[in-house]
Amino acid sequence: MSKQRIQAVYRVCGGERDAHAMARAIAYEQTVELPEALVTDPGILADVVGAVEAVEPDASLPGAHRITIGYSPALANGQLPQLLNLLFGNVSMYPGVRLLDVRLPESFLEHLQGPRYGVEGLRKMLGVHGRPLLATALKPRGTPVDELARMAAEFALGGGDIVKDDQNLVDDDFEAFKLRVQACHRAVADANAATGRRCLYLPHVAAPANELERYFEYLHWLGAPGVLVCPMIMGLDTARALAREHQLLLMAHPALTGSYTNGDSQGMEHGVLLGTLFRLMGADISIFPNVGGRFAITAGDCAGIRDRLRAPLGDLPTAWPCPAGGMHLSNLEAMARDYGADSVFLVGGALLGHSENLRRGTSAFLDEIRRHFHERLEMPAQDSQSDHQLAEAVVRHLRFEDGFQWSNRESTPYKDAHDLAFKGVRRVELVGKFGERTRCDLRYFEVAPGGFTSLEKHLHTHIIIGARGTGVLTMGNQRMVLAPMDVVYLQQLEVHQLHNETQAPFGFLCIVDHQRDRPMKP
Amino acid sequence: MSKQRIQAVYRVCGGERDAHAMARAIAYEQTVELPEALVTDPGILADVVGAVEAVEPDASLPGAHRITIGYSPALANGQLPQLLNLLFGNVSMYPGVRLLDVRLPESFLEHLQGPRYGVEGLRKMLGVHGRPLLATALKPRGTPVDELARMAAEFALGGGDIVKDDQNLVDDDFEAFKLRVQACHRAVADANAATGRRCLYLPHVAAPANELERYFEYLHWLGAPGVLVCPMIMGLDTARALAREHQLLLMAHPALTGSYTNGDSQGMEHGVLLGTLFRLMGADISIFPNVGGRFAITAGDCAGIRDRLRAPLGDLPTAWPCPAGGMHLSNLEAMARDYGADSVFLVGGALLGHSENLRRGTSAFLDEIRRHFHERLEMPAQDSQSDHQLAEAVVRHLRFEDGFQWSNRESTPYKDAHDLAFKGVRRVELVGKFGERTRCDLRYFEVAPGGFTSLEKHLHTHIIIGARGTGVLTMGNQRMVLAPMDVVYLQQLEVHQLHNETQAPFGFLCIVDHQRDRPMKP
Repeated sequence: MSKQRIQAVYRVCGGERDAHAMARAIAYEQTVELPEALVTDPGILADVVGAVEAVEPDASLPGAHRITIGYSPALANGQLPQLLNLLFGNVSMYPGVRLLDVRLPESFLEHLQGPRYGVEGLRKMLGVHGRPLLATALKPRGTPVDELARMAAEFALGGGDIVKDDQNLVDDDFEAFKLRVQACHRAVADANAATGRRCLYLPHVAAPANELERYFEYLHWLGAPGVLVCPMIMGLDTARALAREHQLLLMAHPALTGSYTNGDSQGMEHGVLLGTLFRLMGADISIFPNVGGRFAITAGDCAGIRDRLRAPLGDLPTAWPCPAGGMHLSNLEAMARDYGADSVFLVGGALLGHSENLRRGTSAFLDEIRRHFHERLEMPAQDSQSDHQLAEAVVRHLRFEDGFQWSNRESTPYKDAHDLAFKGVRRVELVGKFGERTRCDLRYFEVAPGGFTSLEKHLHTHIIIGARGTGVLTMGNQRMVLAPMDVVYLQQLEVHQLHNETQAPFGFLCIVDHQRDRPMKP
Repeated sequence: MSKQRIQAVYRVCGGERDAHAMARAIAYEQTVELPEALVTDPGILADVVGAVEAVEPDASLPGAHRITIGYSPALANGQLPQLLNLLFGNVSMYPGVRLLDVRLPESFLEHLQGPRYGVEGLRKMLGVHGRPLLATALKPRGTPVDELARMAAEFALGGGDIVKDDQNLVDDDFEAFKLRVQACHRAVADANAATGRRCLYLPHVAAPANELERYFEYLHWLGAPGVLVCPMIMGLDTARALAREHQLLLMAHPALTGSYTNGDSQGMEHGVLLGTLFRLMGADISIFPNVGGRFAITAGDCAGIRDRLRAPLGDLPTAWPCPAGGMHLSNLEAMARDYGADSVFLVGGALLGHSENLRRGTSAFLDEIRRHFHERLEMPAQDSQSDHQLAEAVVRHLRFEDGFQWSNRESTPYKDAHDLAFKGVRRVELVGKFGERTRCDLRYFEVAPGGFTSLEKHLHTHIIIGARGTGVLTMGNQRMVLAPMDVVYLQQLEVHQLHNETQAPFGFLCIVDHQRDRPMKP
C-alpha cells in the first residue's frame, strides 16, 4: 500500500513531540484542511487524509526532524499543478517546513510525459556525443537586433551547440518578437549551412498569457527547434502544455525559483524543484546557478539537481543539467568532473571576456571541453520540419464534384453520435483532420429524405451553412427552414437537430471548433 | 526622472559597504545580467541598467540595509510576468535579499486593468453595504457532490455572502468538473430565489493548462459570477487573462505563496505579493492567513496586505482583503477592528463547529457581524447574464437573399488592407462580430469583374469556399480556379491573392480565426 502512495518528505523544526504534531497537521492540512475532530467519515479518513509514514530526527540538521507523509495518488488527479498543491500548497505558509524529497508512484507518473527530447533526443538532434554541450546567452537587453543576430552567428561559427536568448529579452508586442527571433534564427541557420554542424537557437518567450499561443505557433511555423521559458513566471503547467503542443525542446530558466529554494527551514530542495518538478514539466534542459558564483547554492544543491534529472522516474526521459553563472575556462575542469558528459555548460560573459572575438572565445572553450572528453560527431538530425514544409503534404484544393463530393475526400459514415439516435446521414470531413493547423474544422453533412441528425447539445458552438436542398433545423423550441447559403449560428448547449422532410437530399456545411467537447443528450 | 521609474526597495543583509556593492550587483543583474566591465554602450548604461537611488540602514532589522533601485518602465513591457522578472527574477536566488516595496509609475500601470469588480463592484453585485462579507469554503475533498451542494445551499439560506470551493476540490476531468459545479451553482441559485438575497458560489478551477480555457468558458456559460484560483500554481498571468476574458470575479487563494513570503532575508513582503501583485493581476478578493492561526504571518504582514489592496494604484479599483484560517465567533471583534467594513471574513470549520447546523452557524456569525457594523441592504444586481441569456440578443438565422445578401447583415466596404492594394471588393461579415462566441469568424467576399483582393500573408490560416461565379486564387506560385463549393485551405504565411478575370461577380466564403494577426505585405 505504502509503495503506491505519493510520498513527500518534509523537514520540520522543533523536537520530537512537535514533529509528530506537525506531521499530523500537514497530513490534514494538505488534504481535507479541517481540524481532526471534524473529520469522521471513514472513507475520507482512509482515502483522503494523508498517512504519517515516518517521523525521524534529521541527521543533517540538529534539532530538526524528517517526516514522511503518504498521499493517495488520486489526490493529484494526474495533473502537475495539483501535484504542486498537494505537496506544498498550504504548507508553504507553515513556519519552518521544507520539502526535501518526493517519491512518485507509476500510477501518477503514467499521466505525465516529461521531456520530449531529453538527453538522447538532443544528442541525436545535434549529432554530438561523448562531451558536454556548450551554450551561451544573447545579451544584454538594449542590443540592436542585427547585433544579437551577429553574436548568435559568431557563436555557431565558433562551434557552439546552443545559443539562447537572455531571459531579459522581452518584446513589447508580437511584431517586435517576430522580427527579433526571425533575425537570430536565420543567422544561426546560415552559420549552420556554412559549418555543416547544427547549432540550436532557442528564443525566449514571455508575453501576456492570452497571447502566448501565437508566440509559440510562430516558433513552430518558423521551424525553431526549441524555446527558453521561465516556468515560475509563466506558470509551470502553461510552459509544459505550450512546449508540448508545439513540439519544442524546452529549456527552463530558474528566474523566481530562489524563493522556493532559499534556506533550510522553508521552501523545497533545489533538486525537487529544478530537478524532479521541472523534469515532470518537460524540461529537456534545466538551468541553475553553479556553485561558487554570486547565487545562494551549494555543491550539494547542484548535485541534487543533477541527480534528480538523471534518476529513474517512471518511463520519463532523463534531462540535462545546465549549470550557469560565473563560469570560466579555469573552472571547466572542475565542472567536467562534477557534471560529466551529459550536461550543458552555459557560459555568458566569459566567452566574450576571453577575447574580443566571440567566435574565437567559443572555439577556445570547446577545445578545452575536448581536452577532457572524447567527442564523437555524427550527422545532426535534419532541421525539424517547419509547418511550411509540413504543409506541402497537405492537400489544399478540394474540387467540388458531382453528387456533392469533393476531390481527395471520402464520405464517411456518421458514427460519432455514441448512443444518440440518427438516420440517413453521411459526412465528408473537408478541412481540419488532414494535418492542417486550424482552430475550426469544416465538414459537409447530408441528410437523406426522411433522415435526421441526432438531437444533442454541446459546449462548443456551430456555424451552419445551407448547401443542398432544404432542411428543417430545430433549435431549442424554434424551428427554421434552412435553404442553400442560409447561415445559422448555434449557441452553446442549445439542443438542436436537423431533419430532412423533403424528397431530395438536404446538405449543409458545418464549422466547428477543432478542439471540442463531446455531444450530450438534451 | 526618478518619479517615472519603477522603484523596487530591497532589504539586503550586511554592512554599508556590502550594501552598496549589492545594490550595484542587483541593478546590473536584473537588467543586463553582465559584469559591469562588459557594459560600455552609453545608451544601455543610461536606459537599461538599473539606477541605485538609495542605500540606507534598515531601522527595523539591525545589520541590514534598504536599497532602492529605479528601473526604466520600458523594461517591464507593460506586462505583469515581465514585471515579476524585472523585480525579482534572478535576485530571488541571491543570498539575503528581500523585496520590501514596489512603486509603479502611471506609464506602467496604464497597461493593466486590475480588479474587474473590486470593492464597489462586488457590493453592487451583492446589494450589501456597510459591513464585512461572510464567506465559507466547501470541504473536505471526498464529500459527495450532492452533499457539497446541500452545504452551499445551507450557507446561502443562512444569509452568507460567498461560498467558495476548497482549493483541494480538483476534478479528474472536465465532465466531473461540470457535474460538481453545476450542482452547487444550482443549489445556491435556488436558495437565492428563496431568500431574495444574492449569495455567490465561486468554483475552484484547476486543470492542465491546455484545458483551462474550456473550464472557464463553462463558468461563463453557466452564469457563474466568479472563480477561485491559486495564482501561484496556475500562473499569475494565466489567472489574470482567463478571469478577465470570461468576465469573472476573481478570488485568489495563497497556496504556494509561503515560499515567497517566508522569512526576513529572502522572498518578498506579504503585502507586495498578496496585496500589490495580486491586485495588479486582477484579484477582486485576496485570501491570506489571518494572524494567530497555524500559519507564519504577523499582524504587520496582514496589515501590509490590507493596506496595499486599498492604497492608490493608478486608476485600479481597490480590492478586498480576506483573512482566513482559525477564525471563530470569539475573535470576530478583533477582526472587525483590524480590517473594517470592506473585508471578507472567510470562516471554515468554525461555522460547522458552531452548531451541527450550517444554516444556524452562518446566521449566528452574521448576527455577530451586524453587532459591530451597520448593515444596509439594497436590491442585489441581477445575476450576471449567462451566455444563454446574452445569446437571445444574437441574431442567429441569416436568410440568404437575392444578389448574395443576407438578412440582418450589410455589405461593408473592404478597408482592412491598410496600405495593401485591392480593387472592387465588398464584404459581408456573417458570424463572429455580433456577440457570438466563436473561435472562427465567417465572412463573404465578392470581387467585381476585373477586381482583386490584396496580395498578402499572415500567420493565421484561411478556409475558403467558392460561392458565386468563378475566380482565380494565387497561392505562392500556384494558381487555381475556384468554382462554387470548391474548398481551399490556405496555410500560414503563404502569400495569396484572389482575382476575378470573368465578366460576372466572383464570391467566396472565408473562415478565419476570430483572434488573428494583421495581414502583411509579401
